[in-house]
Amino acid sequence: MSRTIRLASIPGDGIGPEVVSEALKVLQAVTEGGDTVFDVTEFSLGAGRFTATGDILTDADLEAISGHDAILLGAVGGDPRDPALRGGIIERGLLLKLRFALDHYVNLRPTKVYPGVPSPLSDPGAVDFVVVREGTEGPYVGNGGSLRTGTPHEIANEVSVNTAYGVERVVRYAFDLARKRPAHRLTLVHKTNVLVFSGSLWQRTVDAVAAEYPEVAVDYQHVDAATIHLVADPARFDVIVTDNLFGDILTDLAGAISGGIGLAASGNINPDGAFPSMFEPVHGSAPDIAGQQKADPTAAILSTALLLDHLGLPEESIRVTRAVEADIEGRASASTSGHRSTSEIGDAIAAAVSS
Amino acid sequence: MSRTIRLASIPGDGIGPEVVSEALKVLQAVTEGGDTVFDVTEFSLGAGRFTATGDILTDADLEAISGHDAILLGAVGGDPRDPALRGGIIERGLLLKLRFALDHYVNLRPTKVYPGVPSPLSDPGAVDFVVVREGTEGPYVGNGGSLRTGTPHEIANEVSVNTAYGVERVVRYAFDLARKRPAHRLTLVHKTNVLVFSGSLWQRTVDAVAAEYPEVAVDYQHVDAATIHLVADPARFDVIVTDNLFGDILTDLAGAISGGIGLAASGNINPDGAFPSMFEPVHGSAPDIAGQQKADPTAAILSTALLLDHLGLPEESIRVTRAVEADIEGRASASTSGHRSTSEIGDAIAAAVSS
Ligand SMILES: CC(C)[C@H](C(=O)O)[C@@H](O)C(=O)O
Ligand SMILES: CC(C)[C@H](C(=O)O)[C@@H](O)C(=O)O
Repeated sequence: MSRTIRLASIPGDGIGPEVVSEALKVLQAVTEGGDTVFDVTEFSLGAGRFTATGDILTDADLEAISGHDAILLGAVGGDPRDPALRGGIIERGLLLKLRFALDHYVNLRPTKVYPGVPSPLSDPGAVDFVVVREGTEGPYVGNGGSLRTGTPHEIANEVSVNTAYGVERVVRYAFDLARKRPAHRLTLVHKTNVLVFSGSLWQRTVDAVAAEYPEVAVDYQHVDAATIHLVADPARFDVIVTDNLFGDILTDLAGAISGGIGLAASGNINPDGAFPSMFEPVHGSAPDIAGQQKADPTAAILSTALLLDHLGLPEESIRVTRAVEADIEGRASASTSGHRSTSEIGDAIAAAVSS
Repeated sequence: MSRTIRLASIPGDGIGPEVVSEALKVLQAVTEGGDTVFDVTEFSLGAGRFTATGDILTDADLEAISGHDAILLGAVGGDPRDPALRGGIIERGLLLKLRFALDHYVNLRPTKVYPGVPSPLSDPGAVDFVVVREGTEGPYVGNGGSLRTGTPHEIANEVSVNTAYGVERVVRYAFDLARKRPAHRLTLVHKTNVLVFSGSLWQRTVDAVAAEYPEVAVDYQHVDAATIHLVADPARFDVIVTDNLFGDILTDLAGAISGGIGLAASGNINPDGAFPSMFEPVHGSAPDIAGQQKADPTAAILSTALLLDHLGLPEESIRVTRAVEADIEGRASASTSGHRSTSEIGDAIAAAVSS
């Protein structure tokens, strides 16, 4: 009995298309000869299309994408110096619109230091943690505004919106994850000493849910202090649960300490299954190196491991992860003569998952 | 002709009193035999006093403190597990209240990697930058609220308030500083692709002021990407200008990469001179090691160098900085047998500034 998974692919801008092609190659390879078939529909979205047509994500696009079982996204965002793209028009109109419309309330971002990967930290230790970032609230809701704009009396506000409904569901997800992981630890990161209303909601929610998970050890860190611990002793973390903005900041930092954002995968997940979840590398579109086969597709490939796991294909997911790990270890021992191209890395990992 | 400087000292909680005593020792030593006399009034404020009396900062306290020429603060904040202190009641009622009441719109936080100080980064390079953090706006304004609190329908909002007036004055300060520093570079850090209203105000203000400073090279980084650069290549930064919350996060990270928050000094400055400015180490009250002479007073001592400079005593400021630098270099070459106590470090630096 074969299963067809309808996958929406959004290669996007810059290096997006290059890394997505390698990720699809690996997905193909890991399912080859098995019962699962990926039926891929490509959506041409991003800065390129916006510049050409003025459209970012139409209702028709959104409806078509929603009809899929999952989404793989490369990266979106054009030339940062292009004034027509200022204010994150593509990021908000495409990436954030998808996260909000498809209720991706869990933004899952695992961090691991792989043996042999050079970290900027002299002694990172055995780093293996997951950030569970809230994806549909906080200062990302777009509830800002400005008055007397452009005058010396301008006032520009941004509102961070946090609800018991929104916080509780992501906190529960984080506790479930902490229960399943060997270390059973959960750290709430917030800024409760300044953002007292949202901070109190997050803290009370964690306290209440913690009572149902006696096996999970819970602690709390202010976001500023958390950056110190991430640099000084990242191995102390297991599951971090945090809001949308703090999660954005901490996961880039986590990517950096673990040896580069080229390895950081993420899932934008709707755990209820009401909408398709979306998987993407944490990195951006890097227009400066686009089209040159210089991008590392590893983060995109690791994102397919999260995708496979989410779709109930844990064995395939593990095969992808193992192939990536083996490839990464090989990088450390290989002679440093000559970097591999984007597709050479994809080919190597694809070959490893099929063998 | 002698000059008397009225200094308000707020040792605060935890390790605050220990580090402030060393800082005062050094201030004393550096002015000894000269024309400047520090007349120090101590204010007993913090968690200890709040627990005893219920007062945090009365109108009378504020008035008395305002009558001084400058303020030296150690650290405030009690036992984080004490439920009576939840929600940052001391931090907000004392530290933030002073910053807002005394219009400390520039929060100045220099970062330097001193030769011989072990950094968690394997290769930090020649790090020497200053974060100019806005101190009176952003999500620190306390304009949040919650509805249906404690019910499943709770909604908790936080408002980040940003004004042209508030942004422009701190941006100008940052450009002035960048012009004086040898590298002449300024980086705006924000999240303009998500926080579009405040981000646009910050970006437009930097663009406008930049036109008056043609010698300063300006760039922009999103706050998430800035954490990557701070870890991967911190030597690229010169002056960073950013909002209150991003500045809070980035300066703790900066402290960590430069070899520990024990060296990070800061000034809460009212450049107009309308109110006394306040100098404090970036670190917290560390109640776990309080009273044991384990705290490093270096950040508090370096804060007095900022204080001296602010008060128009640049030579004394340089003498303190040099003495600290020499002491730090000595640490690297000294035998590792036995850590020095808080007062031993203070004594050594005080001796060096007087000689
Ligand atoms: C592109 C941007 C809007 C996005 C975010 O802030 O969430 C990105 O930084 C990320 O982390 O996925
Ligand atoms: C104690 C806290 C309110 C404060 C802040 O957030 O500004 C501290 O972290 C700092 O950086 O001085």
